[in-house]
Amino acid sequence: MKPYVLGIDIGGTNTVFGIVDARGVVLASGSIKTGKHAKLEDYLEELYQEATRLIEANDAVDKIHGIGIGAPNANYFTGTIEDGVNLPWPTPIPLAELVSEKFGVPVAITNDANAAAIGEMTYGAARGMKDFIMITLGTGVGSGIVINGQMVYGHDGFAGELGHLIVKRNNGRLCGCGRTGCLEAYCSATGVARTAREFLEIRTEPSSLRNIPIEQITSKDVYDAAMNGDKLAKDIFDYTGTILGEALADMTVFSSPQAFILFGGLAKSGELLMKPLRAAMDKNMMPIFKGKPKVLLSELKEADAAVLGASALGWEAK
Amino acid sequence: MKPYVLGIDIGGTNTVFGIVDARGVVLASGSIKTGKHAKLEDYLEELYQEATRLIEANDAVDKIHGIGIGAPNANYFTGTIEDGVNLPWPTPIPLAELVSEKFGVPVAITNDANAAAIGEMTYGAARGMKDFIMITLGTGVGSGIVINGQMVYGHDGFAGELGHLIVKRNNGRLCGCGRTGCLEAYCSATGVARTAREFLEIRTEPSSLRNIPIEQITSKDVYDAAMNGDKLAKDIFDYTGTILGEALADMTVFSSPQAFILFGGLAKSGELLMKPLRAAMDKNMMPIFKGKPKVLLSELKEADAAVLGASALGWEAK
Repeated sequence: MKPYVLGIDIGGTNTVFGIVDARGVVLASGSIKTGKHAKLEDYLEELYQEATRLIEANDAVDKIHGIGIGAPNANYFTGTIEDGVNLPWPTPIPLAELVSEKFGVPVAITNDANAAAIGEMTYGAARGMKDFIMITLGTGVGSGIVINGQMVYGHDGFAGELGHLIVKRNNGRLCGCGRTGCLEAYCSATGVARTAREFLEIRTEPSSLRNIPIEQITSKDVYDAAMNGDKLAKDIFDYTGTILGEALADMTVFSSPQAFILFGGLAKSGELLMKPLRAAMDKNMMPIFKGKPKVLLSELKEADAAVLGASALGWEAK
Repeated sequence: MKPYVLGIDIGGTNTVFGIVDARGVVLASGSIKTGKHAKLEDYLEELYQEATRLIEANDAVDKIHGIGIGAPNANYFTGTIEDGVNLPWPTPIPLAELVSEKFGVPVAITNDANAAAIGEMTYGAARGMKDFIMITLGTGVGSGIVINGQMVYGHDGFAGELGHLIVKRNNGRLCGCGRTGCLEAYCSATGVARTAREFLEIRTEPSSLRNIPIEQITSKDVYDAAMNGDKLAKDIFDYTGTILGEALADMTVFSSPQAFILFGGLAKSGELLMKPLRAAMDKNMMPIFKGKPKVLLSELKEADAAVLGASALGWEAK
């Protein structure tokens, strides 16, 4: 088997790529601007040129086993980026085929959260685990589910959308998916900012968050305020952690995972989030699962995680 | 491979067993009373005697490949019936080992709903499906989840307790599991009877159900009344089907199954249940999954289903 894989993470702003070895060491990485090219073929050409330069500079020519790509709405089964995604080119995009033709190497693709789960299983906190659920807490809430050592893709390749579990059945917040009450509308970075705006409007107590124009408040502002002892900001984390903990308890009755692994900006909020999360998870856990699933933080370095996750898929590309 | 398996379904009242061939034909079956024996060893001895008599009478001696058992709280991984179950003997019970010693044949066990799912996959409506979810609507609500052609047991062997998804987060009904708001408290036969009592107490309109002493109303009474055009009884099915449809939409974001397969008494309510169920499922489905998962009824004959399901597990007993 060739010793390296190429991991590519396609985001709305940047496309990051890296050469990775079997132990998860990123030998070298680079990036290009995703939105710079109005034409898909120009984008792919720049990606090919830049990645090839990186491969040559690192003596990896003919040593790439496969390419793994993490991209929004990417379907593992079809190798296609499906409709409804914020990229500058018309969808669907037969990405796996196009990239494979360019590079002459097998390519496998999946969505970002699944890639993160595979990365965590191959190189991170889920090494050796056969049953776990990855939850990515970023701008949205993503998830990757592993059962019996296998990624769960479902019948159509789109399984594992746990950010869209309904956590408020009635009068819930509008979600980007068009429905209301999804987990993502509460427990993402944007969800935390929405909670801040709600709390500040409904409640009257003083808070340092009132010094920030209300539409500009970010989850980072709430974190900073909470760390400085602001009661209302702490309450926002209690609210967020409680909803997430209730949701994790619900997910447990499905696949009884050994662990939940949290990843992304909000996951780094420490005890502000974890304390109410653990309390709610324990309180709402079905008795036979009580105390069983662990909640762990990702062990992948944030800077490398996207590329590592994508690259791990390269090992199974055919 | 030997041509037959023995399927055993252990219920609180009866234990049913049957000899089944590879095509799912039940050659012969029998039953004993589960609760008749205060001692487990006496129960196992009667089971052995009766099953052996059946095997001999059907010329199946030395032709049994394996034994599959469906039993409450039975754990596939440990082969044990765990605590918290309504059987007359002390738990945990190392059932697979005990039965295997008696019969000299490999034994595999799992809970009733998982056995039903395996039966459906082997002989019923899920033949050829790799991703589906079995929902059993009986006294309680059970489930068996199949992903990528494999039964989902989870880290501890207890995965697939979808009857205990929380469908009412606050002020939900008390459930047998000790929590409140579980799907089972609404969409089981007992759940339907509870809804009837609630509706009859809260609402004032006439209903033929008011002729029955309120504590004695069963889901069958509600069904009969609805079929006779009783408006309140129909509303009870609307309420039940809506909650179940919402829950199935939620389950879809997890594993994106090809189909949900409904089994058990309530599943036979026809359009009374299915119409509101489909409407709620469609209304609450995340857009990318809309119109995808089918809702099918079990194709196993009720009388044979439990034994068939359990027996299917016998093929993989080692």
